[in-house]
Amino acid sequence: MTQVTYRGTRRSDAQEQQTHAIIRAAVDEFTRAGIRQASMESIAADAGVSRSTVYRRFPSKDELLAQVVRHLQMRFVTEIGQRVAGLDPRATVVEAFSLAVTGVRQNRLITQILADGAESTGILLGQQGGGLTELVDTFSGGIVTTLRAAGACMPDDEIKQAAEIQFRLVVSLLMSESTTVDVHDDASVRAFAEKFLAPMIW
Amino acid sequence: MTQVTYRGTRRSDAQEQQTHAIIRAAVDEFTRAGIRQASMESIAADAGVSRSTVYRRFPSKDELLAQVVRHLQMRFVTEIGQRVAGLDPRATVVEAFSLAVTGVRQNRLITQILADGAESTGILLGQQGGGLTELVDTFSGGIVTTLRAAGACMPDDEIKQAAEIQFRLVVSLLMSESTTVDVHDDASVRAFAEKFLAPMIW
Repeated sequence: MTQVTYRGTRRSDAQEQQTHAIIRAAVDEFTRAGIRQASMESIAADAGVSRSTVYRRFPSKDELLAQVVRHLQMRFVTEIGQRVAGLDPRATVVEAFSLAVTGVRQNRLITQILADGAESTGILLGQQGGGLTELVDTFSGGIVTTLRAAGACMPDDEIKQAAEIQFRLVVSLLMSESTTVDVHDDASVRAFAEKFLAPMIW
Repeated sequence: MTQVTYRGTRRSDAQEQQTHAIIRAAVDEFTRAGIRQASMESIAADAGVSRSTVYRRFPSKDELLAQVVRHLQMRFVTEIGQRVAGLDPRATVVEAFSLAVTGVRQNRLITQILADGAESTGILLGQQGGGLTELVDTFSGGIVTTLRAAGACMPDDEIKQAAEIQFRLVVSLLMSESTTVDVHDDASVRAFAEKFLAPMIW
């Protein structure tokens, strides 16, 4: 029994390592070659696995891209979490919003995804899987947790709605640039967040 | 000279009437049959023009749909303008936002467009033509004008950004439902606008 579990665990660890290696290789290949030109063969070679292993884990390039996007999202969430440590609720809003708007745009892979057109952007925005509503829920929930940790004490239904406004604006500004907020300029995005978003939180 | 101008004007008037008849017929046909099933032949017959006249004005069903969408948008803008007449700036925000969110959803043609999938939704959101940025600019500009007429005296750059937030949220809530604001319930949408959007305006 113990041995089987041990073996099972080892096999599962090895599989997980392979999956991580594939995702890392995919991030590099998608960034370098663009979404359309990216080659599943190159990704397999870079990850040190066979082509069939890649296809067993990710039956299509879109499914691999969806996984890469989830990986990217988690990395951004971690980075935002680190940046807002110790800030008060309103400063948290400003810091997190500016990082989400300008930081995401500075990411070269996200630029590739947006340049690839509607289908890849749909994957970025969760249209594969649960759709945008689920994406909004997941990320708004994360924002609520962060704001509560920073000391926000406003009622639950209000903080959820305020967090949702923040996330919907991030997505909207990612989908189409603004002529009133310079989404490439951190100071402009911060001023916007300070003026309109921070006052919603208490 | 006079006669030529007169003839030119008459011809142009007749053409405009035909275009209006085609758009009216298209609104009916798209609403009744759905976007995909809608027949350009039926639209021509209903409008009392030949099939070739329809195609001369609108070379594809997508171009006709784009024109129908512009027609719908203008109708909503007019309706909102009538509803907010005499209201103060903050009441204007609440009234206009609730009408834009719940009213648009109650429109059967818009429901058909959203149900038809990404391409038709793209036309609804201005991806044909200038894109979402232009749509945001156009409509935010309209909101600014309305708010100024209602007496808003905040600085220009601020009112533009506030108007843009309002319009981006309308689009976002149209694209994906919310689990914190009931977009089908006028009272819920109004409470949301009163809490978060009205305080931005002064």
